[in-house]
Amino acid sequence: MTIPTTRKVSDSLTEMTEIVLPQHTNRVGTAFGGTVMAWIDVCGAITAGRHAGRICVTAAVDDLIFLSPIHLGDVVVLHGRINAAFSSSMEVEVVVEVEHAPGQRRRSVEALMTFVAIDDKGKPTRIPSLECASDDERVRSEHAGQRRADRLARRR
Amino acid sequence: MTIPTTRKVSDSLTEMTEIVLPQHTNRVGTAFGGTVMAWIDVCGAITAGRHAGRICVTAAVDDLIFLSPIHLGDVVVLHGRINAAFSSSMEVEVVVEVEHAPGQRRRSVEALMTFVAIDDKGKPTRIPSLECASDDERVRSEHAGQRRADRLARRR
Amino acid sequence: MTIPTTRKVSDSLTEMTEIVLPQHTNRVGTAFGGTVMAWIDVCGAITAGRHAGRICVTAAVDDLIFLSPIHLGDVVVLHGRINAAFSSSMEVEVVVEVEHAPGQRRRSVEALMTFVAIDDKGKPTRIPSLECASDDERVRSEHAGQRRADRLARRR
Amino acid sequence: MTIPTTRKVSDSLTEMTEIVLPQHTNRVGTAFGGTVMAWIDVCGAITAGRHAGRICVTAAVDDLIFLSPIHLGDVVVLHGRINAAFSSSMEVEVVVEVEHAPGQRRRSVEALMTFVAIDDKGKPTRIPSLECASDDERVRSEHAGQRRADRLARRR
Amino acid sequence: MTIPTTRKVSDSLTEMTEIVLPQHTNRVGTAFGGTVMAWIDVCGAITAGRHAGRICVTAAVDDLIFLSPIHLGDVVVLHGRINAAFSSSMEVEVVVEVEHAPGQRRRSVEALMTFVAIDDKGKPTRIPSLECASDDERVRSEHAGQRRADRLARRR
Amino acid sequence: MTIPTTRKVSDSLTEMTEIVLPQHTNRVGTAFGGTVMAWIDVCGAITAGRHAGRICVTAAVDDLIFLSPIHLGDVVVLHGRINAAFSSSMEVEVVVEVEHAPGQRRRSVEALMTFVAIDDKGKPTRIPSLECASDDERVRSEHAGQRRADRLARRR
Repeated sequence: MTIPTTRKVSDSLTEMTEIVLPQHTNRVGTAFGGTVMAWIDVCGAITAGRHAGRICVTAAVDDLIFLSPIHLGDVVVLHGRINAAFSSSMEVEVVVEVEHAPGQRRRSVEALMTFVAIDDKGKPTRIPSLECASDDERVRSEHAGQRRADRLARRR
Repeated sequence: MTIPTTRKVSDSLTEMTEIVLPQHTNRVGTAFGGTVMAWIDVCGAITAGRHAGRICVTAAVDDLIFLSPIHLGDVVVLHGRINAAFSSSMEVEVVVEVEHAPGQRRRSVEALMTFVAIDDKGKPTRIPSLECASDDERVRSEHAGQRRADRLARRR
Repeated sequence: MTIPTTRKVSDSLTEMTEIVLPQHTNRVGTAFGGTVMAWIDVCGAITAGRHAGRICVTAAVDDLIFLSPIHLGDVVVLHGRINAAFSSSMEVEVVVEVEHAPGQRRRSVEALMTFVAIDDKGKPTRIPSLECASDDERVRSEHAGQRRADRLARRR
Repeated sequence: MTIPTTRKVSDSLTEMTEIVLPQHTNRVGTAFGGTVMAWIDVCGAITAGRHAGRICVTAAVDDLIFLSPIHLGDVVVLHGRINAAFSSSMEVEVVVEVEHAPGQRRRSVEALMTFVAIDDKGKPTRIPSLECASDDERVRSEHAGQRRADRLARRR
Repeated sequence: MTIPTTRKVSDSLTEMTEIVLPQHTNRVGTAFGGTVMAWIDVCGAITAGRHAGRICVTAAVDDLIFLSPIHLGDVVVLHGRINAAFSSSMEVEVVVEVEHAPGQRRRSVEALMTFVAIDDKGKPTRIPSLECASDDERVRSEHAGQRRADRLARRR
Repeated sequence: MTIPTTRKVSDSLTEMTEIVLPQHTNRVGTAFGGTVMAWIDVCGAITAGRHAGRICVTAAVDDLIFLSPIHLGDVVVLHGRINAAFSSSMEVEVVVEVEHAPGQRRRSVEALMTFVAIDDKGKPTRIPSLECASDDERVRSEHAGQRRADRLARRR
């Protein structure tokens, strides 16, 4: 398979759905934070992998906020999208929504993560660039680049 | 929340995505059948719940065929849809695809299941009827009704 | 090890016992359908493997009915048996019972599944034929053959 | 349900069967000790519960020896039996065998455990006495009583 | 139990140790990111709970970096500590190290998280203030306060 | 890495911390015995591995007593230490405590286990001897040697 040199945001959009079972809960009847983080990590890794055409591993969670609790029995929908592609890494946004009724959803978690594409030896490898198809996509990509620059500065 | 008396097929379409990790595999490096069946059950229960507006429990697996193996590391996409709604039960179809590259998918499992909506006491409860919006949807609904009649006859 | 050319039904009878723990339940306090299906799949795969003397993979769930709910804390007993052996595939019946007290059991799930024996390269491989030792076993084998013919016809 | 004042050894014999999947293994490809111990605990708790007619909790593992390794893909059969019943506790023996071929089994783990029956408030409660039907059963019961006396002495 | 009005950093230091088993790995033989994130979440929740004397839930992952991969079979040590306590929330730092030999460890993941203490109704509740016992602890607390102010500004 | 010929008790002390989540409980709301036993096995294997500088597998549980129940939501702390080192095996003691409040702990489980160090072919291999640094450590080592002699005698 040849990996193209550029891909659209829409090529890697990812949707994941789960039900919160007792095995996913903590001692107060809401979803255990670690379970939700693991779901977000899977959703992000699939999104990144669809863009890169390669196995992608988690490099960082840059920001992840729990906005409202998720309860036992809730149907949970995760949406992953690429905000920006750099040389071998990507910023992926994952939004988690709780569905109360068909069409009625509440935003519950927002996450920004960085994934890196690796080759067969486990080394970072070049990925397609991101083709932005709208102003919204361009703004997201710029903001992601700015966040990356800020993070690199902060972490130094 | 008021549950409407009728719902469209498109109201309950469900998409689930998973990666096959080592914890999901059997001793020959492919996805363990029981794990795939559990994913299909979750996908079907969410689909049924979206139509019914109620908690739905598994009543039967009417037919489930593994068409091609699913390997460690594969990205798996499940699609659930309502074929037919009866008084308190639904036939749900779940199709599992393996994704090789963005846009390249191979059909891997097909399942037809029956779910029943239950009320707060765990008793079967009336569900919205299914509004078919195309000939394909009408044919599916008729075939599902026929399969149900055949099953009831066979099981007697 | 040499695999014999024929085996009796009694050679592969399988008994599995489980307790329903919170990690096995759904949001209404009964066993999660997917967990029960995974147990049935393990029981069936062991039964088939005992007959074939080979690793067996799930080919199909032909019919699986939940007759009565299974609750948190229930002791669950699964019984697997070969109904019929074809060239490389078998029909396996798995019955799940809930035990209320020693000797008091309620039939809770019935399943008919098809397993295929595979060789070291993952290809279907020849299995021993089934030696029926009673009229009941002969009737089961004939019915299984008829169901298989019907399924092949339906799926075409 | 009335609980009888005496029960036979044969009333509570328990058989459990499992396949060793990758999720059950350790880093050297054999079954993870903790998984096997958890299976033994489930088998023992079911055996004790069948004798007592009550929920039974683990009080002690008195002796548990791994005789030979259990590998990925092995079919594992556990057998639980009551050796002796005291006022509210029981000595349960669990033997784990690995099955190489139908009828060919190697003894892999032997365990002696103590379980206690509890009432609805979680307090130890009286259990049926054990009716021994053979010299072997009487010898086992005496040895269990002796081991218990030795343990109580050692632990003091 | 009365909860004190102030606690030292040393009162809530937490150490967690795990082995990376096959069930914790991804498709390339390293620890699955989601598993490591779940371990970090447990470690952070225990640390926060020890400071607050209350159940604490995850409010945010503010920064989490994977510095080096964690492999199958690695022994992993997590250290949690409170950097700063606010009115009902805390910044918790979790550092994950991989141990190659006794005394030889490599820093593998660094995480900064925010946890919130909740009362019996699930509402945020007042927590003890943090008594800093060294210049290092005071600097950490100030930096945490600054990061919090920056985050609140960024998220606005 | 060269493995030293002797190691101190303090070189391999292990601390593990867990929260009891619903997935760890049994049907009466306390920690499932098998889960606690699996945690103890991990803790013991890490302790043994730190002493041996090798992968260690479980050879036996010599004595394991549940002193008091562990409840949903409890923070659990496990401490592992080497009591004695023989030619290729070690007696490891694991103590499990439940933490009610910072500094307030109740001893909940005590376990004595035997682990064996294995080489790259899975065969038992020589381990460092144990350097006892106090009278308490010497007494523990002697008692462990005595218990081992008693066990060997009992098992014969």
